[in-house]
Amino acid sequence: MKVRIDVTEERPEAAPSLLDPADWNAFRSTAHALLDRLISQIEQAADGPVWTPMPATVKRRLAEPLPREPRSVDDVCNDLAELILPYGTGNTHPRFWGWVHGSGTAGGMLAEMATAAINANCGGRDHGAIHVEKCVLDWMAQWFGFPKTTAGGLLVTGSSMANLLGLAAARNRAIKNVRRDGINEARLTGYVSREAHSCIVKAFELLGLGRDALRRVRVDDNFALDVDRLRAEVKQDRADGFQPFCCIATAGTVNTGASDDIAALADFCRSEGLWLHVDGAFGALTILCPELAPRLAGIERADSLAFDFHKWLHVPYDAGCLLVREQKTLLDTFADRAPYLASGAALAGGDIWPCDLGPELSRGFRALKVWFTLQEHGTRRLGEAIARNCRQAQTLAAKLASRPAIRVMAPVPLQIVCCRYEADGMDETAIDTLNAELVATLQRRGIAAPSTCRIGERLCIRVNITNHRTSEADLTVLVQAIDAIGAELAAATQPERRRAVS
Amino acid sequence: MKVRIDVTEERPEAAPSLLDPADWNAFRSTAHALLDRLISQIEQAADGPVWTPMPATVKRRLAEPLPREPRSVDDVCNDLAELILPYGTGNTHPRFWGWVHGSGTAGGMLAEMATAAINANCGGRDHGAIHVEKCVLDWMAQWFGFPKTTAGGLLVTGSSMANLLGLAAARNRAIKNVRRDGINEARLTGYVSREAHSCIVKAFELLGLGRDALRRVRVDDNFALDVDRLRAEVKQDRADGFQPFCCIATAGTVNTGASDDIAALADFCRSEGLWLHVDGAFGALTILCPELAPRLAGIERADSLAFDFHKWLHVPYDAGCLLVREQKTLLDTFADRAPYLASGAALAGGDIWPCDLGPELSRGFRALKVWFTLQEHGTRRLGEAIARNCRQAQTLAAKLASRPAIRVMAPVPLQIVCCRYEADGMDETAIDTLNAELVATLQRRGIAAPSTCRIGERLCIRVNITNHRTSEADLTVLVQAIDAIGAELAAATQPERRRAVS
Repeated sequence: MKVRIDVTEERPEAAPSLLDPADWNAFRSTAHALLDRLISQIEQAADGPVWTPMPATVKRRLAEPLPREPRSVDDVCNDLAELILPYGTGNTHPRFWGWVHGSGTAGGMLAEMATAAINANCGGRDHGAIHVEKCVLDWMAQWFGFPKTTAGGLLVTGSSMANLLGLAAARNRAIKNVRRDGINEARLTGYVSREAHSCIVKAFELLGLGRDALRRVRVDDNFALDVDRLRAEVKQDRADGFQPFCCIATAGTVNTGASDDIAALADFCRSEGLWLHVDGAFGALTILCPELAPRLAGIERADSLAFDFHKWLHVPYDAGCLLVREQKTLLDTFADRAPYLASGAALAGGDIWPCDLGPELSRGFRALKVWFTLQEHGTRRLGEAIARNCRQAQTLAAKLASRPAIRVMAPVPLQIVCCRYEADGMDETAIDTLNAELVATLQRRGIAAPSTCRIGERLCIRVNITNHRTSEADLTVLVQAIDAIGAELAAATQPERRRAVS
Repeated sequence: MKVRIDVTEERPEAAPSLLDPADWNAFRSTAHALLDRLISQIEQAADGPVWTPMPATVKRRLAEPLPREPRSVDDVCNDLAELILPYGTGNTHPRFWGWVHGSGTAGGMLAEMATAAINANCGGRDHGAIHVEKCVLDWMAQWFGFPKTTAGGLLVTGSSMANLLGLAAARNRAIKNVRRDGINEARLTGYVSREAHSCIVKAFELLGLGRDALRRVRVDDNFALDVDRLRAEVKQDRADGFQPFCCIATAGTVNTGASDDIAALADFCRSEGLWLHVDGAFGALTILCPELAPRLAGIERADSLAFDFHKWLHVPYDAGCLLVREQKTLLDTFADRAPYLASGAALAGGDIWPCDLGPELSRGFRALKVWFTLQEHGTRRLGEAIARNCRQAQTLAAKLASRPAIRVMAPVPLQIVCCRYEADGMDETAIDTLNAELVATLQRRGIAAPSTCRIGERLCIRVNITNHRTSEADLTVLVQAIDAIGAELAAATQPERRRAVS
């Protein structure tokens, strides 16, 4: 006896969904109009100012009470177009160079449409999205030379999260029964360069180790971790009764794009029995550039590696990745399913679910936009877009250095240029203020959007080119604008300075 | 002197982006074709089987090496349609009732298109997306009666993350200087019911407290936390030198939809000086249903609250929320910006950035799909969709209870029905096996997708109706199928049982 229940026939008595469109044709026409508008917005990314602040009137309209009754989807799309679309961060514009933002792509938008239509929860179970994520992770393990048979990982929101989870795995290896008993009396210490990202500090805090357990090791003249100094600190900590457990290498610092000597750190970690984690948020993706990849030598020996797809691969936000050399280390750190999540047959199939490898049970289908981007552009072109940004940074540094009033403040190993407008007769603090105001002015006038950082004590204009729309013409605009606005601001502060001197 | 740099004129010398479409018209036509296909897929969500496993041939094709050279976006969309779109989890189908999945909406897809086009990084800075998130959080604070002037929060991937961050804030209040010094000798203990979600356990692990520091308090006959027992355990722990620091109330357990008495727990927490965190992953949203909201009484007194938009509001994955009574508690726990992230003027404006309130610096624009869903449907209709699911669960429980071979295993306070097919003459373990196989068979045949759980020791068929497409007709199909497949499986095991008896 086998039951036959015909589920393919129409559901005649079915009551309509409360949330599906009542009129699919009307919905379709609204959707196509919105899509057209969005494509135009991307196509015209170079037009207009880099940044337009949201006016107070718009903020007030957004803050109006929520509607109790439904509205037509057409009205909502009109509000979206009027109140939200014009006020982006600016990172789709060719002259956005703040922080480390990717620029997005038109193809990425198509992937996100499909992701929403599929609406998969990638916490687990046996369905297509899980397999796509697996493929993406296998490709990543291959890129970075991780062992095919043991490697594993997880797509996450970004490197902040990937760094946290990699360090959680390191902690789990270092403290027996930490999952059951907590940290207790363990006196773990970790090591990272002073130029490393602040999310490493925050990870130490969240893991309950405390930020003082993270030793910030001084850097050399190239802003890379000083390995000799590291050696000395580890030795001293051992002598003082601490338990060194991990070292974090940075591939691409946020201030200057510097990279630590990963191979040397891998040697050191092996000799000392330390976990090697690499924060390669943007720098790791230079693996796609034949001329830059050699600087990553040793990355294939990391125990864990964090990097982002939404930065230099321009996948829509958010999408980062944690790769580990041995998937088992993540299972040991995170696997723990309640009975209602038990693996089984059919849809509950699959022996390892992503929720066994990290803290999230609900997870969007981030792998699709990565898959789409990789398929559409291919590895060679994606690598070429990265390499082009690095060449542009060299060009920019040369252009800036040729201006008498502008000083380039650090080497330019990758895509970041730090410079400073130095007006005659101003002290360093006044120059700091002038450069901060210069950056704000560039943004306010919509000319360009670099950000700021500090090199040593000094505030710099920081130009980060992770932008596939940037052209040399844009760099010329920037150099002219820095020179001109710098002079303008210096002139405006003259009376002040005269008063101060007299 | 004010510099005039005309940035609105065309960029004549600009080299084209490597990653923008070479032919925008061709791209447009591909995009519209994909959109049409995706809308049809949502429109026809009820057609065909609930779940179709991805065939091995498709998995092999996905696993092919990455292309080195670019492909046409049309080809990639064709692969997407052939290899990925047909193999969803099933949660868009009216007869998907596994775990706790939302069903998504067509409008949600439009919001995600726009999100990808804007491509905002919501870690911080002063741009539209930040203000939209702020509005959504203000609305949420209002829904749950949190104090308007002090409340704050963060959109995150889901409740696993929101629970983690809420408990991190509780830990931060309990241990002086925990961010600097780590956990050290603190002997914190937290309290949650045995029916609570496993992500609470995982949060205790990740925070370095250890899962043994989380006391799993027994439940009453309604599967709600036994407050008398809690009182006794806290007293004992204090006597034993532990430091009780928080209590986690559950609004809607995953097994049966039970809710703890939040008001009683709020009273207890106040008298004991404990942090009250509420895990309201799906249950919290019954706040929108006048007939169900009273069961949440006391939620307005929580210190922190976690819930999901992607479950019962059907916002596309992923989108959860952490609300806190005092934003300052999150700032105290997480704020720490490196100089390159310093707040400033213009684009770097805004005094509090989302990265000050949590561990993530890169964050997608989740607020837009929430905003869109709320605007499109309004609070009344969203609440009605939730209430309808709860009425459907009552109807289903009655239908199931009327069948002689089916037993309803737990009260049905919300949308979850647990039942069990009990064939005559089988022992409990054999019945467990039969019911597991029954669920797998329902899925394999594409009829329906409930999941399983355990009530006490016993494996149950667990039907969770967080689905705006479910109709009574679908419930009828399910009841008939459980009865018929149950009989079929029982008959198939008869020979075995006969052998075992003889």
